[in-house]
Amino acid sequence: MNPIEKLKKEFSEITRLNYIRSLLGWDQQVNLPPGSFGGRAEQSALMSKIVHERLISDKIGSLIKECEKLDNLDIIDAAFIREAKRDYDLEVKLPTKLVQEVSKTASLGHAKWVEARKNDDFSLFQPLLEKMIGLQIQVAEKLDTHPDPYSTLIDLYEPGATYDWIAKIFNKSKQDLNKIIKKLNNSTDKPDFSIITQKWDVNKQWDFSIEVIKGLNYDFNKGRQDKSAHPFTTSLSSSDTRFTTRIDENFFSTCVFGSIHECGHALYDMGFKKEIHDNILANGCSMGIHESQSRMWENMVGRSKEFWKYWYPKLEKSFPENLKNISVEDFHRSINTVQPSLIRVEADEVTYGMHVILRFELERDIIEGNVNVSELPEIWNSKMEDLLGITPPNNADGVLQDVHWSGGAFGYFPTYYLGNLYGAQFYKKALKDHPSLPEEYEKGNFSNLLTFVRENIHQYGRIYQAKDLITSVTGEDLNPDYFIEYLEKKFYPIYRV
Amino acid sequence: MNPIEKLKKEFSEITRLNYIRSLLGWDQQVNLPPGSFGGRAEQSALMSKIVHERLISDKIGSLIKECEKLDNLDIIDAAFIREAKRDYDLEVKLPTKLVQEVSKTASLGHAKWVEARKNDDFSLFQPLLEKMIGLQIQVAEKLDTHPDPYSTLIDLYEPGATYDWIAKIFNKSKQDLNKIIKKLNNSTDKPDFSIITQKWDVNKQWDFSIEVIKGLNYDFNKGRQDKSAHPFTTSLSSSDTRFTTRIDENFFSTCVFGSIHECGHALYDMGFKKEIHDNILANGCSMGIHESQSRMWENMVGRSKEFWKYWYPKLEKSFPENLKNISVEDFHRSINTVQPSLIRVEADEVTYGMHVILRFELERDIIEGNVNVSELPEIWNSKMEDLLGITPPNNADGVLQDVHWSGGAFGYFPTYYLGNLYGAQFYKKALKDHPSLPEEYEKGNFSNLLTFVRENIHQYGRIYQAKDLITSVTGEDLNPDYFIEYLEKKFYPIYRV
Repeated sequence: MNPIEKLKKEFSEITRLNYIRSLLGWDQQVNLPPGSFGGRAEQSALMSKIVHERLISDKIGSLIKECEKLDNLDIIDAAFIREAKRDYDLEVKLPTKLVQEVSKTASLGHAKWVEARKNDDFSLFQPLLEKMIGLQIQVAEKLDTHPDPYSTLIDLYEPGATYDWIAKIFNKSKQDLNKIIKKLNNSTDKPDFSIITQKWDVNKQWDFSIEVIKGLNYDFNKGRQDKSAHPFTTSLSSSDTRFTTRIDENFFSTCVFGSIHECGHALYDMGFKKEIHDNILANGCSMGIHESQSRMWENMVGRSKEFWKYWYPKLEKSFPENLKNISVEDFHRSINTVQPSLIRVEADEVTYGMHVILRFELERDIIEGNVNVSELPEIWNSKMEDLLGITPPNNADGVLQDVHWSGGAFGYFPTYYLGNLYGAQFYKKALKDHPSLPEEYEKGNFSNLLTFVRENIHQYGRIYQAKDLITSVTGEDLNPDYFIEYLEKKFYPIYRV
Repeated sequence: MNPIEKLKKEFSEITRLNYIRSLLGWDQQVNLPPGSFGGRAEQSALMSKIVHERLISDKIGSLIKECEKLDNLDIIDAAFIREAKRDYDLEVKLPTKLVQEVSKTASLGHAKWVEARKNDDFSLFQPLLEKMIGLQIQVAEKLDTHPDPYSTLIDLYEPGATYDWIAKIFNKSKQDLNKIIKKLNNSTDKPDFSIITQKWDVNKQWDFSIEVIKGLNYDFNKGRQDKSAHPFTTSLSSSDTRFTTRIDENFFSTCVFGSIHECGHALYDMGFKKEIHDNILANGCSMGIHESQSRMWENMVGRSKEFWKYWYPKLEKSFPENLKNISVEDFHRSINTVQPSLIRVEADEVTYGMHVILRFELERDIIEGNVNVSELPEIWNSKMEDLLGITPPNNADGVLQDVHWSGGAFGYFPTYYLGNLYGAQFYKKALKDHPSLPEEYEKGNFSNLLTFVRENIHQYGRIYQAKDLITSVTGEDLNPDYFIEYLEKKFYPIYRV
């Protein structure tokens, strides 16, 4: 075997071990009995240690050096070596003990977060959160890829991105979004939000969500949908991409749009080209690009008028009582109600960005050591007041709402809003190439959009970096104006302003 | 750390890795999307390889040697070293490639078995079964712990047992069971089997089974019940013991007695003493002893008159239509109908042994190389005719009914009947010590029997070997007469002979 083949073999085993770690995580969130978190935490930590030790082995180190000497590589091999080196260079800086500690704290932290959220008691989560923040600061210090520690953490999820680059985009967005929010707020003909906040039978919601994601060409032969406290998507092999949803009896959007969102993530993972399966390139090129796919399907497709022209008659059959005397137009306006709300994942498309900006600013302060963890609930609430004009009535729907910090994912949140921006730019290009897409949705045909993203984005996995991908697909760098333009074009008519 | 502590640390990691392997297996049988078997097979094989390589490492080999020199060990440490040496000595004889091959063939074999059974097409399973038999013969040759290969395989599941020892017991049982079957067959007042073969709503069956196992003190905080094609119990940590069941709309016994059976296994695994948690002693001392617990709860408790005096009124509430005008006595007789049937796991207590004896004799011939795999369906059917007087109408309910061979578990089946024998002997002792147990069942109190088996059997895990355990608990070696005595005492009154 030549050195690339050898390196691929090593990383294919590491990839399989990571799939197994993902199963430990999926099972923890979907199935694990409450009294079993301790044992699972030990198992996850052990697997993290095994993966870490393999990744930083001398064998891999020297294979990478050998591979770097090669030239005339095809695009896949070149990308493979680049990404293998990135993974190795990052991991080799982290002491095994720290990796294990992070993994164990994440498992225990998740359990404590669930408990704290359930009981609306931040103090239950606080000690493990403090520990995790300390560990993440250590991780940033050890990795030291950027002058500021928060950029170092961001780079783990959005390779190449920095705090400064994002802050510039987000500061502009704050103004743009505020302008739109104000204008919509002045409308005298707003959507009727109460349509989607009726009681909706949970079993029927579940069944309907399954029909919708089947319609979007999610392949149940290679995946499944389940329920969990925090919806997520995870791949357990190159042919096993599962996602979860949650159902709110009093809010229609939670289950269906949550399902479409996660389905969007899953379609990405299911679309990697065969040549890169079971190895490190079979992954999203960045979390922001990954999120562009979920937000595109959820919002640009799933919350469009054309989408519901097809699905609304079916929904009426499932919920004849709820939808009596309600036109598809009224329903479509209702699911696009814009108003400040407490929960990020359930926020409308316009105010969503504010939720992300809040976390981005807060995380920066946390990682810089400017925040006392015990004060987080108060700071959270005052930032909510600043950015959205509302104050959470409790911590469960405030600082405790997201799973991310329990797992140590500081630096992940900004990629959510970046996803909207990438998504709008990709989608504009898709519509330019295929102007008939919306008409196709009306007939229940969603396959041409899938073909577009499969061909232009999904198949490549990590072969291209985010910066190169957006340029090669759309012809220009990330341009946040497309998203603002999309919002204005969509919401001003809905609000009749 | 002294050598024992070091060895314990090594084996506790191996134990955790084995728990992770169990999760891969549990998920495969409960959740895995159909198109994902290939990826899972690779993962299982990789984990098998990792465990195998750790187990046969020089480090463990020399730690065991050091530990063997120690004296004045307490009973747990002595047992730990004995069992560590047993695991090491067995594993070190197996080439890594063979271990991986078995694991991969097992994963693929399971998928093919499911497909073959579903389509009633033995030929779909045949190639992988042939491969697995070849691999198991190799395993036996490599291990070579007994002069005959089948005994070598049996010893993996029932340490210390041999083909000859079991054959002697089984040959005697064949006569004893035949005598009972004949006598029951001559009855002129047989139970009404049609009571339990009505249509039984599957959701209500499921709910009822949950109530029953809660009543038996199964701890849902440390486990869960799911559905799978072949019911099984597995531990995913010292505080996570799950089991599965299946539901037959047309046969009441499948779900409820299957659930009680697996619950019996689970209670064993949940009862290991804390000092042995997360290490190799936290396991059943033999498969026969394990089965004694499941069969005891399923049959001696769950199919007793006293059990139903408590549960029948609750069952009537769930199924008022089915049970209209049926007395608890008639119901109890119906669930104890004795008649030759096709499926082992659903056989009555009397004919059950014949199913096991069939497999035992057949496996011996397979492992000795006296059987052509393509002829297995015919041989199976002719043996069914010999032993039970019936011929399976198809292979799905014949040679394809059990999952075991797909996973390579040759030598496992005989432990099922041994479990009946161990169970009867243990239960006789329990009744001798606590004559009021049956009266307690009538009041829904099953905790004193659990306390008895926890104190005498469960807590010890692998500390004692089967031979020592049965002697220390009951005062004598395994004596198959207790089971026959139990059957006669129970079934002659039910059949009024």
